[in-house]
Amino acid sequence: MARPTLDESVVLEDDAVAILDRRRFPFERVWVRCATVDEVAVAIEDMVTQSSGPYFAALFGMVLAARAAAHLPPADARAALDRAGGRLIASRATNNHLRKAVAAVLAEVDGPITGEELVAAATRGAVKGDEAYRAKSRALGEYSAKLLPDGARVLTHCWADAYLIETVAAAGRLGKDVSFFCTETRPYLQGARLTAETLAEMGVDTTLITDGMGASVLQSGAVDVLLTAADRVTMDGHVVNKIGTLGLAVAAHAFGVPFLAQVQAPDQAAPTAADVPIEYRDGSEVLHTLGVRTASDKVRGHYPAFDVTPPRFVTTIVTDRGPFDPDTVADYHR
Amino acid sequence: MARPTLDESVVLEDDAVAILDRRRFPFERVWVRCATVDEVAVAIEDMVTQSSGPYFAALFGMVLAARAAAHLPPADARAALDRAGGRLIASRATNNHLRKAVAAVLAEVDGPITGEELVAAATRGAVKGDEAYRAKSRALGEYSAKLLPDGARVLTHCWADAYLIETVAAAGRLGKDVSFFCTETRPYLQGARLTAETLAEMGVDTTLITDGMGASVLQSGAVDVLLTAADRVTMDGHVVNKIGTLGLAVAAHAFGVPFLAQVQAPDQAAPTAADVPIEYRDGSEVLHTLGVRTASDKVRGHYPAFDVTPPRFVTTIVTDRGPFDPDTVADYHR
Repeated sequence: MARPTLDESVVLEDDAVAILDRRRFPFERVWVRCATVDEVAVAIEDMVTQSSGPYFAALFGMVLAARAAAHLPPADARAALDRAGGRLIASRATNNHLRKAVAAVLAEVDGPITGEELVAAATRGAVKGDEAYRAKSRALGEYSAKLLPDGARVLTHCWADAYLIETVAAAGRLGKDVSFFCTETRPYLQGARLTAETLAEMGVDTTLITDGMGASVLQSGAVDVLLTAADRVTMDGHVVNKIGTLGLAVAAHAFGVPFLAQVQAPDQAAPTAADVPIEYRDGSEVLHTLGVRTASDKVRGHYPAFDVTPPRFVTTIVTDRGPFDPDTVADYHR
Repeated sequence: MARPTLDESVVLEDDAVAILDRRRFPFERVWVRCATVDEVAVAIEDMVTQSSGPYFAALFGMVLAARAAAHLPPADARAALDRAGGRLIASRATNNHLRKAVAAVLAEVDGPITGEELVAAATRGAVKGDEAYRAKSRALGEYSAKLLPDGARVLTHCWADAYLIETVAAAGRLGKDVSFFCTETRPYLQGARLTAETLAEMGVDTTLITDGMGASVLQSGAVDVLLTAADRVTMDGHVVNKIGTLGLAVAAHAFGVPFLAQVQAPDQAAPTAADVPIEYRDGSEVLHTLGVRTASDKVRGHYPAFDVTPPRFVTTIVTDRGPFDPDTVADYHR
């Protein structure tokens, strides 16, 4: 099975972090080179990368920060790294990946170090973070693939990135054939561009629908399972994910289709949905498509970037430690 | 309250039917002139006009057919009109408007007439059909406005055309303030272009969302009612409407928001949903936005143009004879 392009779309270089611009993929393959941690944070804010991408960008952004701070005394260097981490974490609010990436690097920056030692420690943290993320994604992909019947027709939404790639790869290793419906996922069209392109690169039969067609497809019997990533899962089983997930989950529930939500782990810092800040992005995005005005010039747009699916509409939460009922997902941390 | 542009977007001229091109409105105001009934049918197939538009186009298309047949003997002229009606009805399958428009004209072409008498009769039928449609739309708009609370925040989907215009106008006459959320309605963006522009022209506060945001808005308490037109309502209360309606209706039901569906009358020829053919349009539409490719070039698109909402997800069906519960909507014809 071919390794898809987006499986390696954030790269640490000698003097920058190079990020494949997901706003233009697959129509153009353009890399944005970020020479400072602030440039990395702006790239994340501006959606140059998203889904799993910001995690890797934050890991490598912290290495840039360590390089920039290497000439400082240890205490000042550490303070600079903490500031850099704060800047990265502030770039987007809802997903936990940024916090985890920053923590992975800082965990290795241990004690009063600076200079080459500091850079080596930060780089080690970034590599460990990279490997851990991929290993966990692979584990949850394998658990997910086990839950899919052979011949599964799957509806997915937005772009589940490493989780989706690993699920499809694991299904292949199990000899299971899978096919997908994916939603285009306005306003950024992650489904139409990233998910559709990647599934096709992996040789998976893929059909694209608009965001309004999901309920009809679920009602029709054309899909066996709804499968999405989750940006965050609360300890009481609420699934926070890309706007549009909620409507699909409610329809899946109404028409008897199971909904599997993938997350590496539920968030111990979020007992319930009220503990997760929902990011609102610029409403003008809703009025445009790939930069072209597609709405009347007389209206405003509204853009909540995520929605919250209550546990009653979720069948199973698949983690790197296996599947959980949403009501008992807190057991993950036992 | 200003009369919106789309309230008169199909015009009978001396030698043609002029149709405002809704695929380009409001960015461009271009009229497509159809000199024959076949050109009218092709314009309907190609979505030059939609919603209420094909009804008026079919009325006036039948007048073109009468003009073209006026040199024939009465029996041949009538046969030509029947063929023209068949061609118009075949242009789109799901909505009843085309059948009703053709019947309205043919009802006046009574007995063995031809020449100027035939043209006069067909024109009379078209005028009566036009007036009847507007009167019924006004009546159902008034019943709908009565059901809205003052200050109602309404979510609508796609473009309900005359029903929406009359509802907003009636609310104004009742002194009720209303505001709207509307979905952009991919792939043709009727909501982003037609609904948004028209509501703004009528002075209504309007917020645009993508098709995937409806459930979140319904969950949030930001809207009081879901209001859409129906292309067809079956005698047992199924609502057939633009793809995307089902998902909104299921979410409205889940979060306790009433769903009002507007139709002039339930269809006696459709006892239940199996009696309504669902039109599937070219899947490539899903891969494009306003003619520009917006999806990976490696996938196919799927485009059911309508979906079917079962009566358990419908609160009220508003007709020109008042509101009905979906389970008793057949009483309309008593």
